Amino acid sequence: MNYLKYSFCFLFFSYFCTMKATIINIGDELLIGQVVNTNASTMARLLTGVGIEVVRTEVIGDNRQDIWDAVDKAINTTDAVLLTGGLGPTKDDITKHLLCEYFGSELYENEEALNNVKRIFKARGYELTEVNRRQAWVPRCCQVLNNDLGTAPCMWFERGGKVLVSMAGVPFEMEWLMNNRVLPRLQHHFRTGAILNKNILVQGIGESFLSDLIEPWELALPSFIRLAYLPVAGMVKLRLTARGNDETLLQEAIDKAVSELYPIAGQYIVGEDCETLPELVAQKLTSAGCTLAVAESCTGGTIASRLTALAGASAYFKGGIVAYSNEVKECALGVSHDTLAAHGAVSEETVRQMVDGVRSRLDSDYALATTGIAGPTGGTPDKPVGTVWIAACSRNTTVTQLMHYGDRRQQTIDRTVNQAYAMLIRLLCQKD
Amino acid sequence: MNYLKYSFCFLFFSYFCTMKATIINIGDELLIGQVVNTNASTMARLLTGVGIEVVRTEVIGDNRQDIWDAVDKAINTTDAVLLTGGLGPTKDDITKHLLCEYFGSELYENEEALNNVKRIFKARGYELTEVNRRQAWVPRCCQVLNNDLGTAPCMWFERGGKVLVSMAGVPFEMEWLMNNRVLPRLQHHFRTGAILNKNILVQGIGESFLSDLIEPWELALPSFIRLAYLPVAGMVKLRLTARGNDETLLQEAIDKAVSELYPIAGQYIVGEDCETLPELVAQKLTSAGCTLAVAESCTGGTIASRLTALAGASAYFKGGIVAYSNEVKECALGVSHDTLAAHGAVSEETVRQMVDGVRSRLDSDYALATTGIAGPTGGTPDKPVGTVWIAACSRNTTVTQLMHYGDRRQQTIDRTVNQAYAMLIRLLCQKD
Repeated sequence: MNYLKYSFCFLFFSYFCTMKATIINIGDELLIGQVVNTNASTMARLLTGVGIEVVRTEVIGDNRQDIWDAVDKAINTTDAVLLTGGLGPTKDDITKHLLCEYFGSELYENEEALNNVKRIFKARGYELTEVNRRQAWVPRCCQVLNNDLGTAPCMWFERGGKVLVSMAGVPFEMEWLMNNRVLPRLQHHFRTGAILNKNILVQGIGESFLSDLIEPWELALPSFIRLAYLPVAGMVKLRLTARGNDETLLQEAIDKAVSELYPIAGQYIVGEDCETLPELVAQKLTSAGCTLAVAESCTGGTIASRLTALAGASAYFKGGIVAYSNEVKECALGVSHDTLAAHGAVSEETVRQMVDGVRSRLDSDYALATTGIAGPTGGTPDKPVGTVWIAACSRNTTVTQLMHYGDRRQQTIDRTVNQAYAMLIRLLCQKD
Repeated sequence: MNYLKYSFCFLFFSYFCTMKATIINIGDELLIGQVVNTNASTMARLLTGVGIEVVRTEVIGDNRQDIWDAVDKAINTTDAVLLTGGLGPTKDDITKHLLCEYFGSELYENEEALNNVKRIFKARGYELTEVNRRQAWVPRCCQVLNNDLGTAPCMWFERGGKVLVSMAGVPFEMEWLMNNRVLPRLQHHFRTGAILNKNILVQGIGESFLSDLIEPWELALPSFIRLAYLPVAGMVKLRLTARGNDETLLQEAIDKAVSELYPIAGQYIVGEDCETLPELVAQKLTSAGCTLAVAESCTGGTIASRLTALAGASAYFKGGIVAYSNEVKECALGVSHDTLAAHGAVSEETVRQMVDGVRSRLDSDYALATTGIAGPTGGTPDKPVGTVWIAACSRNTTVTQLMHYGDRRQQTIDRTVNQAYAMLIRLLCQKD
């Protein structure tokens, strides 16, 4: 049996995966629904990534009894409790006082935390007031983990082997604290062992068909490797997670599993080791030293905006034309008036001229183009809402594809964007 | 006293605002953090909008004990419990069986629900299997609220005046069910009275400065009107919520409050009755019968993509140029080589030529342009990361503005986009 040598890993897997966590996000603003609670998903993703299972996430307001009950339940039912919010210097933010009482401690002014507050106020050119100084007061029983990005200290409490961490609710502060302070300590504290994650981006096949196709492969995976399907807008991210105590063996097992997946589903695999298709596009174009231009009609700038949201886009992204009206398709992309009249804006002929037009006018190595009917109106019997033509081209090759998405506007836009990225990646790989 | 005639409303306000709700979202996919739980915020916003206070939202997995405990706690501590997820036909989805047991009922095949499943399968051209037919089985004690968009029926349970609603977790099904089935019934059941919401979009002033500026006005509001500050990327949405039993009086009071706000903060108010600036831009351009073109450098297509995400954008949006490289600024927008050489890409001279170039080349009534250093690299002592020039123009007027945002890329993009929309709206209002 090929996987026999990994069998001992399984013992550790069973042990390691028992650590459970609760996430509690505190903030009245989350309960009126004007802010989407991205903290919960970010924290859950990060915890899952190091092998800690999130069993519950909860949002509550700045209310003493609710916070007390949530903390008490969480610490009694799970191994780790991750708390955000309620740490500002105003009287509404009561978390710190409550935790002090809960753990039977008293507040004192922590020197390290005070120095951090002073440093931040100095950098921003503000004067330190008494109210701000209060940020440095923490329960004596906790350990302060320095928050380099903000004034609210991160507090680590332990009781009977269990851990409670309280941190700022500002998303970028929380994420920095999780990555730089909290996760390493949690891994050490719970001896979570080695964990390797591997992402494989699959495109062009639905989740259920993919599942049928790779079922024999999935069933043959060693028991210390878990597979998760993460579908997003016409794409499926497969994530393999291996846990054990020997990183080298885990890596070998993952490599083997991945290499065995290619003969089965290779035609649908667009990349590895990325979270999203824009990241993969950025990586491939940067390493190939090639440039991209885009011509967008129905996606209205979304292909461009998701690429330029990533730092470093100027290395490969020259620009784009959002050709929403036919007039702009003609004047800015050089689509011929006759083509538009004969075949319509949503046609293979038009998308070809769009992609070639933007590539030559912006003088890029590669180009993408989209034209379609996102809806809800504008459909015809021949071309119902959801009809989309997509094109990708290099200096020598142009490929086009007709898609039929449903009648939901944002879904059509998202799927078109991902399909376009995938076509570009395939074209780039052909060149390789 | 001006507000004396509204005083009786206050009595109702106190009564009405006591209805409390818990939101429970069930789904393993939410606990590994690969999906952001937008359902909770959508539901919270909708419930808050009809005067029901959300005191807790919780995410749990498809685990019997966790669901039971969450339901039990919620129904014992709040008046309404809104549940999503766990309603698929597969064995993982156990919510329905559990609710049946919890309410001491039995499952039966509901005819209305079955007809709905049949209708949807027929429309999609699929054959109805036994597994899918199971979707029509519901506890006998609940009332079925028809789910026009999906096969999982929405179930309404009552016990001792309290309400539990279980519905599909697919975001667009949930939102449709909330608006069309659940909210009207909740309002009727809890006699929540009349509730009027009024949004005022404020831009160009920070939240704390705004708060200081309008404090006297806020303190003079009648007690049945509540004010909420909702800051988003350089903009603040003020929301007034009035509750009582006489809608006419509430409307009068809100109108009066709004009219009194203008002399104090009118210069910062960009609009009313919209949730977002793109909506307001769409509304104003459509009603003016005018067209827009955009030239984006640092925002990389985001101004365009947020407008085209809204249905009906083709009525006013001609298109845009994403001029990420200097080359594209020259060739597609006609920015002069000398200007770029003398003043740089991030300069008033360049942004002026960009905005005028895109307006004339795409022949639109209005145009917007952005150029800046989103970071993290590319800053200089003269033009640090976060330096952005923004321009808006009509056929006769061009206005420009220099902004200094911080070193966080996405924040700089988001703020630039909102600032650009606000400049356009101000220009449109001048014309009015």
